[in-house]
Amino acid sequence: MATGFLKYFLPKDKVFYTLFETASDNIELLARKFILVVQESDFNKRAILIKEMEDIEHKNDEISHQIFIELGRNFITPFDREDIHSLASALDDIADYIYGAGKKINFYRIDPLQDDGIQKSANAILEAVLAVKSAVAEIRNLKNTHKIVEFIIKINNIENQSDEIFDSCIEKLFDSDVDAKELIKRRELYQELELITDKCEDAGNVIESIIVKYA
Amino acid sequence: MATGFLKYFLPKDKVFYTLFETASDNIELLARKFILVVQESDFNKRAILIKEMEDIEHKNDEISHQIFIELGRNFITPFDREDIHSLASALDDIADYIYGAGKKINFYRIDPLQDDGIQKSANAILEAVLAVKSAVAEIRNLKNTHKIVEFIIKINNIENQSDEIFDSCIEKLFDSDVDAKELIKRRELYQELELITDKCEDAGNVIESIIVKYA
Amino acid sequence: MATGFLKYFLPKDKVFYTLFETASDNIELLARKFILVVQESDFNKRAILIKEMEDIEHKNDEISHQIFIELGRNFITPFDREDIHSLASALDDIADYIYGAGKKINFYRIDPLQDDGIQKSANAILEAVLAVKSAVAEIRNLKNTHKIVEFIIKINNIENQSDEIFDSCIEKLFDSDVDAKELIKRRELYQELELITDKCEDAGNVIESIIVKYA
Repeated sequence: MATGFLKYFLPKDKVFYTLFETASDNIELLARKFILVVQESDFNKRAILIKEMEDIEHKNDEISHQIFIELGRNFITPFDREDIHSLASALDDIADYIYGAGKKINFYRIDPLQDDGIQKSANAILEAVLAVKSAVAEIRNLKNTHKIVEFIIKINNIENQSDEIFDSCIEKLFDSDVDAKELIKRRELYQELELITDKCEDAGNVIESIIVKYA
Repeated sequence: MATGFLKYFLPKDKVFYTLFETASDNIELLARKFILVVQESDFNKRAILIKEMEDIEHKNDEISHQIFIELGRNFITPFDREDIHSLASALDDIADYIYGAGKKINFYRIDPLQDDGIQKSANAILEAVLAVKSAVAEIRNLKNTHKIVEFIIKINNIENQSDEIFDSCIEKLFDSDVDAKELIKRRELYQELELITDKCEDAGNVIESIIVKYA
Repeated sequence: MATGFLKYFLPKDKVFYTLFETASDNIELLARKFILVVQESDFNKRAILIKEMEDIEHKNDEISHQIFIELGRNFITPFDREDIHSLASALDDIADYIYGAGKKINFYRIDPLQDDGIQKSANAILEAVLAVKSAVAEIRNLKNTHKIVEFIIKINNIENQSDEIFDSCIEKLFDSDVDAKELIKRRELYQELELITDKCEDAGNVIESIIVKYA
């Protein structure tokens, strides 16, 4: 970031890049906390981590809100207004769903350590989030389209893996002898986990459409 | 509304304010009928109220349809076309989901009087709908941004309360000894109820973005 | 289509009509394969048909992708950019959900021949898809608005029928003595089937908004 008087020369619309980067930093924090949650066997220690996730998610809400406010204020934006809106919404959804998945684990008293699918999903989510973050960081100059395309392909590959993890979780679940309540709870958690990488793919799609137009 | 020849002097785009106000009046009617539904112990009397909800919802469909038609016809709109589209969609969804929740109560033969969560949700929904209506009424002149912001904050607070009502309903439900069918039915109804205040929040968000741009 | 050197005078944006027509041809293929799936009693023969559905769905993904790429490239489009985006998304969703429903039948080991609701839904889906295809074919000249409106009304009627099929499926399901697992699986499939005609209605709504603006 420019310091001192230099910042007054920064076109105002550059604010979007910084806001998107802050949002994706936050999402990385959430994905890393979520890994800690699913590796923690103690309910109360998980509760502390989930509370920390809640705080990060609230910060992310404020960033999203600021993006929408800036979008209302700035009539000249670095790229299409609808792309800014879609990217902000996708990043906001990613944060919401990661926190939601964390919350659900304790709410439904699911033991994540006993569930291989949850472990695999948490890792896939972090990988997808890191690829989103890398792609977001490249929007600022749009010079390395080659690299952005690689990140987008990576996100899509992880999303495909997540679909397979989800299918295998559901298959195991229906083959198991858990009671109906447990089945409904786990199925809901698996769906939420799968949604996170879907939303990463949405973010990737918006970034791709930005490249096509401006790079 | 202007009568006689005066109406020819009304800028055509003013039609949007009137349509949005009619839609939010209708949604208030639906929320009030829904309160009557959840306070009625007799299945057949509920059925009559739900039929009345259906008729109001159909009227609302026509209003939404008219908004989209006007949006196609009017190339000059009082505020951003995409905001008009989003607000119309949010109001349409609110109406859809309130009617859907009413219908589901009889369809699943749920006794609403025995369910404290449904009672609380119905009241929260009416409160949220009234705040949306008040905010919509202020778009016409956009002078009292102070008041609009208060309505939007109110909607968001009610939405947070609804999340808590939902969590507590789900917790009770999974702790109860109802069978799987009853559990699935009630969970679906709770989700639908919670979605209604989400959609009120969406309407509030659009109105906020309109204020930022034009007030 | 123009032949010979004439085609070089065709404005580049005509590409959208062709892409939409190819997408709707593909969707028809998917709906026809889905009919074959639900009429096939043998699990392994169904698996072959579902694999064929997957290939068609992949082709459709590529078409959608191409539409988004063209949308980024073409600054002059035959109709509103957001309408092109919405129509492409609706057609993409229809294809996704038809394939998803096919996949779910074998994944959940549901016998479609024993389920009257699945049979009726498959027929309703083909009818809705054919009406969407007919409406899409008319966008190219927008002369027969009368005919397009008829197709849109037809789509809406089929969507209403699908709602009734869905309600009756759910009613039967909850009245039956199937276990919780079977109930959850079938309910999910019915919801997916109902979503397909919803998405056809979305496509119809976009086409209607195009007519209002340009016809």
